[in-house]
Amino acid sequence: MHNYWTLSQRAAAMNPSVLREILKVIERPGMISFAGGLPAPETFPVEAFARASERVLREQGSAALQYAPSEGYGPLREAVAAMLPWQVSPEQVLITTGSQQGLDLVAKVLLDAGSRVLVEEPTYLGALQAFAPMQPQVCGVAADEEGVKLDALHAAVGETQATAAQANYTANHPRFLYVLPNFQNPTGHSMGEARRVALVQAAQNLRLPLLEDNPYGELWFDAPPPAPLASRNPNGVIYLGSFSKVLAPGLRLGYMVAPKAVFPKLLQAKQAADLHTPGFNQRMVAQVLQEDGGNFLSQHVPNIRALYKSRCQAMLNALQCEMTEFVAQGMAWNKPAGGMFLWLRLPPGMDAQNLLPKAIAKNVAFVPGAAFYANQPDVRTMRLSFVTVDEEKIAQGIALLAQAIREAVRETGREVQAK
Amino acid sequence: MHNYWTLSQRAAAMNPSVLREILKVIERPGMISFAGGLPAPETFPVEAFARASERVLREQGSAALQYAPSEGYGPLREAVAAMLPWQVSPEQVLITTGSQQGLDLVAKVLLDAGSRVLVEEPTYLGALQAFAPMQPQVCGVAADEEGVKLDALHAAVGETQATAAQANYTANHPRFLYVLPNFQNPTGHSMGEARRVALVQAAQNLRLPLLEDNPYGELWFDAPPPAPLASRNPNGVIYLGSFSKVLAPGLRLGYMVAPKAVFPKLLQAKQAADLHTPGFNQRMVAQVLQEDGGNFLSQHVPNIRALYKSRCQAMLNALQCEMTEFVAQGMAWNKPAGGMFLWLRLPPGMDAQNLLPKAIAKNVAFVPGAAFYANQPDVRTMRLSFVTVDEEKIAQGIALLAQAIREAVRETGREVQAK
Repeated sequence: MHNYWTLSQRAAAMNPSVLREILKVIERPGMISFAGGLPAPETFPVEAFARASERVLREQGSAALQYAPSEGYGPLREAVAAMLPWQVSPEQVLITTGSQQGLDLVAKVLLDAGSRVLVEEPTYLGALQAFAPMQPQVCGVAADEEGVKLDALHAAVGETQATAAQANYTANHPRFLYVLPNFQNPTGHSMGEARRVALVQAAQNLRLPLLEDNPYGELWFDAPPPAPLASRNPNGVIYLGSFSKVLAPGLRLGYMVAPKAVFPKLLQAKQAADLHTPGFNQRMVAQVLQEDGGNFLSQHVPNIRALYKSRCQAMLNALQCEMTEFVAQGMAWNKPAGGMFLWLRLPPGMDAQNLLPKAIAKNVAFVPGAAFYANQPDVRTMRLSFVTVDEEKIAQGIALLAQAIREAVRETGREVQAK
Repeated sequence: MHNYWTLSQRAAAMNPSVLREILKVIERPGMISFAGGLPAPETFPVEAFARASERVLREQGSAALQYAPSEGYGPLREAVAAMLPWQVSPEQVLITTGSQQGLDLVAKVLLDAGSRVLVEEPTYLGALQAFAPMQPQVCGVAADEEGVKLDALHAAVGETQATAAQANYTANHPRFLYVLPNFQNPTGHSMGEARRVALVQAAQNLRLPLLEDNPYGELWFDAPPPAPLASRNPNGVIYLGSFSKVLAPGLRLGYMVAPKAVFPKLLQAKQAADLHTPGFNQRMVAQVLQEDGGNFLSQHVPNIRALYKSRCQAMLNALQCEMTEFVAQGMAWNKPAGGMFLWLRLPPGMDAQNLLPKAIAKNVAFVPGAAFYANQPDVRTMRLSFVTVDEEKIAQGIALLAQAIREAVRETGREVQAK
């Protein structure tokens, strides 16, 4: 059957997720996995969903099970608009089948083959996968502990502010910059107030649209993060949100807030992609949000924050305890202010990818950071999720990871001696 | 903010659905609408869904609400494979967010900008919308009451069977032919056994992959349709199925059966598009299918068939009664053997698009057929859905439609006289 099926050129750019491949390997019993990107299932409000499901089917079964508008269920669009910390009209809210679909729709509407798109380095792997089918040229912009660096951004845009102000663009002007300002995946980094102000100003000066992805913003430990970028320039930012981390991911419910200049095309792309997000799920979530007099999330999310904070602290304590010897050799990690992930950098000369099999042999897993880089990976990095493993297992797992690193260091030492 | 957002070239090819625009207009009270493409909501098994939802949340709440594999929920993939009338491995089944998503994924994986893709003329509008973002060259192939005509197909491929046998393709060889063999949307036409045999043979000779869309196949009135095209050449056909017409569309549950040559890329495209179809919905449907000792559908679907058959008959009776005078002038319609739609062709010189405002003024609506053509529309055609309006209203609506046509004919007469 040679050549019976001709694949598109874009198919060559599609790849199985490294993460999914890793996750398959580490599903064996006994494994302590810091590799997943899953929220802790014990936080899912199963009872509230059961009540909502029963009520939706009883009171509006036919409507919930019928075809529905592509924009989304009206009351849910209104609830989303009301929930966001800036003035948002429900007309600008598009309900998506998870916020992953938002990435697919934005890519379709804003990216041509060869278009430049800027991403923080490192960034969310799923975004790179969602953009890839549109065949853009993805350009990683260096980031520090607050996210994208402005000098690197200016360099990447390849224009001075002066020429940008003259709207003197090349065809190569990036279509947008993709950023996760809150507790970023994979690093757990967050952007402070000053950087947000400066980034939004720079983007306006450069006439560079922003795609702001905020799945983790509600998962802060001690204080909420600064206001979203979208609230500072609503006409220059597409904002993606999700119920996956504050309720549960299995309903696949996300949303997008988009300026009028792009909303109609995003809606048309949505309609072509799957007609609409399941109306039953939208009504269930709208119903759950209405519980406790409309305060369900403000009752529920603090429990998630408390759990994730204590697990994060357990991981920080374990690292402090187990990794002291490597700190002197140049190991470092951050102290997340929220979210699900911590970013660890091995001592110079080490490669997290090479370390992984040794760690798995000891029944502990992580994701090597290289997968999250669009361009030049930092092979010393790894992502550690602290949310799905209990505190005792976190301590055990970090101790096992330290053993694996110790062995790898010894081997590296032997290799160096042998040379 | 001129030029702040640069849209992709493909965005220009996206258009709001004509249908959705019409459906908005006709949602006013008192309107008898034959325009919708919705199944009859009184057939939705609301009670079975309520039982399934309660049980899924009680027995496997956390798993149902967690992230899940992109391929789909194992037991549902197995149930789909077992349900299909040919030997299908669950490994070849991909669960999709409605079968509309299947069209999006196939377009991504098989179409480059400028690729030729063949469709029956007329065809499902949503397929044209799903293909458009990949910027193919869509080529309509003439069809008769059994679907695509083989001489037109050979002409469209632009190759004789002899040269095709030598695998002497141009870069312009069509990537696939999209067909709905059962009770087609919009025409209600069905492909007989002989045409299926001939089409599958011709496609093999032409080395032309087929995309077979089968949302309506179970909705037969007196006898099931012949076996699917995919069953006759599984390696040469991607098959799309759906639970929207046999259970309910609001859960957005479809599936795809794809040959090994394309499955991995379709799966990667699926993962990038929305990670996975809601696991809760997949478990609910798997649970419903298991009711009545696994015979839920074979108990439930006959009720839908009976309802749709009687409504189809009511429409045929009403047409017979009201439209006699126009038959002499060249009006014609088909007698569907299943599905949801009937295809009516106005007398020569008339245009269904022009008729629509007159019909709406009389409180009856339909969809002008022109929207369903990829290339040269037949402006005399219209699509009439017979499934969402009861028999009494069908008779009233067809009588109103006849009045509207009568007026239009008189006006056309006056215009001709005036010239």
